[in-house]
Amino acid sequence: MSIKIGISGYGNLAKGVESAIQQNDDLELVAVFTRRDPASVKIRDPKAGVYPVSDLADFADKIDVLVLCGGSATDLPEQTPEAAKLFNVVDSFDTHARIPEHFANVDAAAKASGKVGIISVGWDPGMFSLLRMISDAVLPEGNHYTFWGRGVSQGHSDAIRRIEGVKDARQYTIPVEASVDQVRAGKNPTFTTRQMHTRECFVVAEEGADQAAIEHEIKTMPNYFADYDTTVHFISQEELDRDHAGLPHGGFVIRSGVNGWNKENQSIIEYNLKLDSNPEFTGSVLAAYARAAYRLNQEGTSGAKTVFDIAPSYLSAKSPEDLRSHLL
Amino acid sequence: MSIKIGISGYGNLAKGVESAIQQNDDLELVAVFTRRDPASVKIRDPKAGVYPVSDLADFADKIDVLVLCGGSATDLPEQTPEAAKLFNVVDSFDTHARIPEHFANVDAAAKASGKVGIISVGWDPGMFSLLRMISDAVLPEGNHYTFWGRGVSQGHSDAIRRIEGVKDARQYTIPVEASVDQVRAGKNPTFTTRQMHTRECFVVAEEGADQAAIEHEIKTMPNYFADYDTTVHFISQEELDRDHAGLPHGGFVIRSGVNGWNKENQSIIEYNLKLDSNPEFTGSVLAAYARAAYRLNQEGTSGAKTVFDIAPSYLSAKSPEDLRSHLL
Repeated sequence: MSIKIGISGYGNLAKGVESAIQQNDDLELVAVFTRRDPASVKIRDPKAGVYPVSDLADFADKIDVLVLCGGSATDLPEQTPEAAKLFNVVDSFDTHARIPEHFANVDAAAKASGKVGIISVGWDPGMFSLLRMISDAVLPEGNHYTFWGRGVSQGHSDAIRRIEGVKDARQYTIPVEASVDQVRAGKNPTFTTRQMHTRECFVVAEEGADQAAIEHEIKTMPNYFADYDTTVHFISQEELDRDHAGLPHGGFVIRSGVNGWNKENQSIIEYNLKLDSNPEFTGSVLAAYARAAYRLNQEGTSGAKTVFDIAPSYLSAKSPEDLRSHLL
Repeated sequence: MSIKIGISGYGNLAKGVESAIQQNDDLELVAVFTRRDPASVKIRDPKAGVYPVSDLADFADKIDVLVLCGGSATDLPEQTPEAAKLFNVVDSFDTHARIPEHFANVDAAAKASGKVGIISVGWDPGMFSLLRMISDAVLPEGNHYTFWGRGVSQGHSDAIRRIEGVKDARQYTIPVEASVDQVRAGKNPTFTTRQMHTRECFVVAEEGADQAAIEHEIKTMPNYFADYDTTVHFISQEELDRDHAGLPHGGFVIRSGVNGWNKENQSIIEYNLKLDSNPEFTGSVLAAYARAAYRLNQEGTSGAKTVFDIAPSYLSAKSPEDLRSHLL
C-alpha cells in the first residue's frame, strides 16, 4: 500500500516533488491543489487530479501527507499551520530568522490535530543543516563554513526583476575560490560577507532603459548585493533563454575542527552538492521526509519536527535489515 | 550533571575517546578497564581510574555508558553483548558481513537488561554509512561510491607485519584519482577493485631478510593485496618512525543520482573526510553516540541501534531550540 501524497502549489518546487514521487514506488501522488483555475494547470502525473485549494478539507481522509510548495515570505507561515490541522505536512520554509516562530505555530496546530509537521526541509535548510549539526556534535571545537553555488539564486533574480527597466534576469551566486581553498586547508579563517561569495547578474533591459542606472541600482541594493562584489552583464532575452534557462545550484558545508589530547590534530568534514536542478533535488528531499512524516505519525508521534529530530531510517523505503546489511 | 563514561580497552581508539570526552563538558570519564595490569596502564585523564576488566560489574551504577574499544575480529562479538547486560554501550564493530549477527546478539542482551547498545559507530561504518543511507533515500535512482584514503590501513599494516622477515610496516590506501574524477563528473562508471584504490607499503625488513620474497608475498596476498596495484618500499626503522608515525585517514562517499520527470538532471552528493588522526576522529564520533545512548535510555528506549536509528539531535549537547536557531 503506497503513501498518498498531496501537493499544495504547482511551481518549480512542486514539479520537483511530482518527479520525485514518480521515482519512489511507495509514494503516490493523489492531488495537486492550486490557487489558479484548476483547468488551467496541467500536471504531468496522469493518475493525479488538480483541485482548488478550497477543496483541501475534502481530502482529509484521502491524503497521508501534504507537501507545501508555497513561498516562505507569505505563503508558508499561513499555510503550513493551517494545513497541519488536517494533514501530516512537510514544507521547505527557509527564512532562517523566523524558524523558531514557524516551528511553534506548526507544533501547536499539529499537536492539536495529532499530525506530524516537518518544517524547513530541502538542502539549506535541510541536508546542509543536518551536516552542520552532526559535524558540530562530532567536532565540538571548530568552525563551520557554508558556501553556496555556483548556482542560480531565485530570490536575487527576483530582486533584480523588480527594478524599473528590467525585463528579465538571472543571478548566480559564486563561492570565492581562494577562500574555499583556505577553509579546505584547515586554516580556520574569519571572513567578511564579501570574501565568501561573489554575485554575477545577467540582465535583459527593456528597450530604451538606462543600463547604467540599472547596474548602479543592483550593485547598491542593501542585503541583496551591496555587501558583495557584483558583476552585471546585459544580454538579450534570446541569450538569457538559451544560456540561462536551468536552475542549477549546489554548494558545500565544511566543518574544520580539532582532535587529540592537546588538540594537535585536525579533522575536516565537507559535504558537497552539485545539482543540475535545485527545485528537483529539493523536491527529492521533501519526498523522503514526506515518507518520514507518515511513518512517524503511524507510530503515534505528533507535533512539529525538523531534520534534526528524525532518525535517518525513516527516510528510506528499505527495511532496517536491508539498510544494515547493505548500507551500514 | 554530566554523563559518566567508561572505556573498555586502552589502545589508540580508546585514547581517541578519552580526548573527545575532554572536549565535551557534559561527558565525564570515570574509568578505563584493561586486561593488562592496571598499574602498567597510564591514562591521561587525572580524574579517572584504571581497573581490571574483571571489576566491570562493580561499576554498573557508576557508569552511564561503556564505550568498547576492542577489535572487531574477536573482542567485540563477545564483549559488546556481555557488557550490554550491565550498561548502555557503544562500539565500533566494523566487520560488515557480521553486522546482522552482532546486531541480533546486542539487541537480545540490551532488551533483556533495558539498556541501549549502539553498534558500528565511527566513520566507516558510521558517518559514511549515514551519508550512504540518507543519499540513497533522497536520490533513489543512482549509484554510490566509497573511496578510502589517502590513509593508513591498520589491518593491512598488521597483515604485512605477520610476514616472516618483516620487522615493521605501514600501509597506505590511496584512491585512484582518475576514477574519482569520473565519479565526480557524474559518469556513473563501474569499477573493478583495482580501479578504485592502490596500496603503498613501507616495510622495515629484518637484517638479512629476503626482500624480494617479502615483496612477492605482500603483492600476492589474497584479499589484502592481490586485487590491487601495490607498491612496496623498504625503509629503515628510523625512516618509518620519522615519516610514518601518524595514523591519518579519510575518504569520501559519493552518490550520483538523477532527478526530473525524464531523469534528465543529475545530482551529485559528496561527503568527504580528511583526518590527521583516524582513531581520534573515530573516538569523537563514539563520544557523540555515547551521549545519544544515554539520552535514548533515559527516555525508556532499549535494544540495539545503529546510526540509522538515531535522530541527529541526540548527538548534540545543545538544546533543540539552540540547534533550530543556529544550525538549521
